[in-house]
Amino acid sequence: MPATLKDFEAVFPKLVEDLKQHCEHYKLPTQALDWFEKSLTYNTLGGKCNRGLSVIDTTQILLGRDLTSDEYFHAATLGWMIELLQAFFLVSDDIMDSSKTRRGQPCWYLAPNVGMIAINDAFMLESSIYVLLKKYFKSHPAYVELMELFHEVSFQTELGQTCDLLTAPEDHVDLENFSLEKYTFIVIYKTAYYSFYLPVALALLYTGKASAENLKQAEDILIPMGEYFQVQDDYLDNFADPETLGKIGTDIQDNKCSWLVNQALKKCSKEQRKALEENYGRKEKACEAKVKKLFDELELEKVYKEYEEERVADLRKKIAAVDERQGMKKEVFEEFLRKIYKRSK
Amino acid sequence: MPATLKDFEAVFPKLVEDLKQHCEHYKLPTQALDWFEKSLTYNTLGGKCNRGLSVIDTTQILLGRDLTSDEYFHAATLGWMIELLQAFFLVSDDIMDSSKTRRGQPCWYLAPNVGMIAINDAFMLESSIYVLLKKYFKSHPAYVELMELFHEVSFQTELGQTCDLLTAPEDHVDLENFSLEKYTFIVIYKTAYYSFYLPVALALLYTGKASAENLKQAEDILIPMGEYFQVQDDYLDNFADPETLGKIGTDIQDNKCSWLVNQALKKCSKEQRKALEENYGRKEKACEAKVKKLFDELELEKVYKEYEEERVADLRKKIAAVDERQGMKKEVFEEFLRKIYKRSK
Repeated sequence: MPATLKDFEAVFPKLVEDLKQHCEHYKLPTQALDWFEKSLTYNTLGGKCNRGLSVIDTTQILLGRDLTSDEYFHAATLGWMIELLQAFFLVSDDIMDSSKTRRGQPCWYLAPNVGMIAINDAFMLESSIYVLLKKYFKSHPAYVELMELFHEVSFQTELGQTCDLLTAPEDHVDLENFSLEKYTFIVIYKTAYYSFYLPVALALLYTGKASAENLKQAEDILIPMGEYFQVQDDYLDNFADPETLGKIGTDIQDNKCSWLVNQALKKCSKEQRKALEENYGRKEKACEAKVKKLFDELELEKVYKEYEEERVADLRKKIAAVDERQGMKKEVFEEFLRKIYKRSK
Repeated sequence: MPATLKDFEAVFPKLVEDLKQHCEHYKLPTQALDWFEKSLTYNTLGGKCNRGLSVIDTTQILLGRDLTSDEYFHAATLGWMIELLQAFFLVSDDIMDSSKTRRGQPCWYLAPNVGMIAINDAFMLESSIYVLLKKYFKSHPAYVELMELFHEVSFQTELGQTCDLLTAPEDHVDLENFSLEKYTFIVIYKTAYYSFYLPVALALLYTGKASAENLKQAEDILIPMGEYFQVQDDYLDNFADPETLGKIGTDIQDNKCSWLVNQALKKCSKEQRKALEENYGRKEKACEAKVKKLFDELELEKVYKEYEEERVADLRKKIAAVDERQGMKKEVFEEFLRKIYKRSK
């Protein structure tokens, strides 16, 4: 049975207590302690927690049995560390992107009295990972590898973010700067490593099955799967029913280096390119409508469907070829693919 | 012979090469690679590097001899990691404090085309520490302790920054919120740990002399010394000759929770308190002048001189009592104290 959000969320208050206790031992003044607790709750809770939950699911599949309550707690704690890492990135991404809302509430930096303090709050969310890692995994045989994994994936995500910010600045449209090569780098580094590879790598390390071969197999499947996930995200931003998606896409207006615009650039005629250049990344509704029309003319929905079928067929082939002799399970990847194939939100 | 800035700076290009190589192995697009290199150079170089240099000096004193070129490189690399940590904090502090210049040039976030990308650049400076730590210290017996030390000191500095930002917001003056207790917390956590304790703890770990007793002796002397250093900084901000100091102090106008204002609050009459409340933390020159006059009336220069003599006498007593049987050297602390006692800039 897949882990439920309810059970996973029930672990969080204990971790907040641990972090508060750590601060109290430093004699942090109450005002600052309350602030930290508020930031932790505001920024880490309220999402779907797919990344965190998949650490638990993967651990269960790798062990081939239900988890003891102690194992559940440890797997969930690793899961919450991914959620903390994501919170660290989202709090700061929202400032860098001038976003307004996140998970149905104002972005943290726009909450009352926060402002740029949010930058330091983001740092504290990141630091919390290592406080918890030391508290609960110091005697685990893979303690060093767990720390190194968080360091490496953080750096990879930051590299992806650097490339994204330089390729698609909010305020300066230059389609010359876009390319499928950069697009691929951005989605792999900014999203795939921490969202797909990290949960499985953590579960492998936790269960003692993190041989070099198993980590490599995980990477070879989960990175292309994460890429597919982000392409899907870009597709849904434009083509999904906003009602079902739960939000209105703004990639075109926001000058995003999305999969769709890169496909359009590949297929378009000279005239169509001119239309793209004149209308992409502009806030006006009429400009957005012209780009949407162009995406339809270029049949990008069809291009996407073909991409999806091809990529999923390839992933299925790779999954079928997984070597289970060192304890890896095909089911780990089947479960990830099941959750995202043909999703509509 | 104390290490020179010139020799220390000569190590940096090699570390930049290492970091670039690491990015190239991820196939980071050139535009992003150049950006990272520019941020590394702009933000890490150009300071006095006292923190970095003191890792080398301390290592030399602990070993009681000149360093081999390999040892020099490793000690300098640990020193550069402190400078990277500091760069990470300064880039982000400057955004949070709306600062304009740093080391005689525009703050990074105000440099052309940077803006809020600076937040992600700060993250990359932090991540660089762990890339270098893994590259050069993975096989060192204290590798885990080195990582944990950087985690802990980062978290401590962030806690100090949280308390500082909440106690003295730039735009809201409330002297009720100040206290010597909060002041002490802020200076110990925001400054003393990373500037005084960290260099010595790194040298102890590197030389294999980091027994619990030695680390405790270092902390017990260097934290009060760091506190003294910051009190001195606050004193100089108001009382030093700007010509000698190399800058014009702005603590009063910036509503800083400084040592001076806390001493003033302790000594002032009801009327003087009213004058402080009306004039502290305001941008007008006339308000600043009134506060400066009040500081003179309250004889804060004398109060400082007494504090300095008392604190230094206490530090000398502690240094004289240092137990050298586990390889700690009194000279480590004497060297730190020599560099700061009665400094005028």
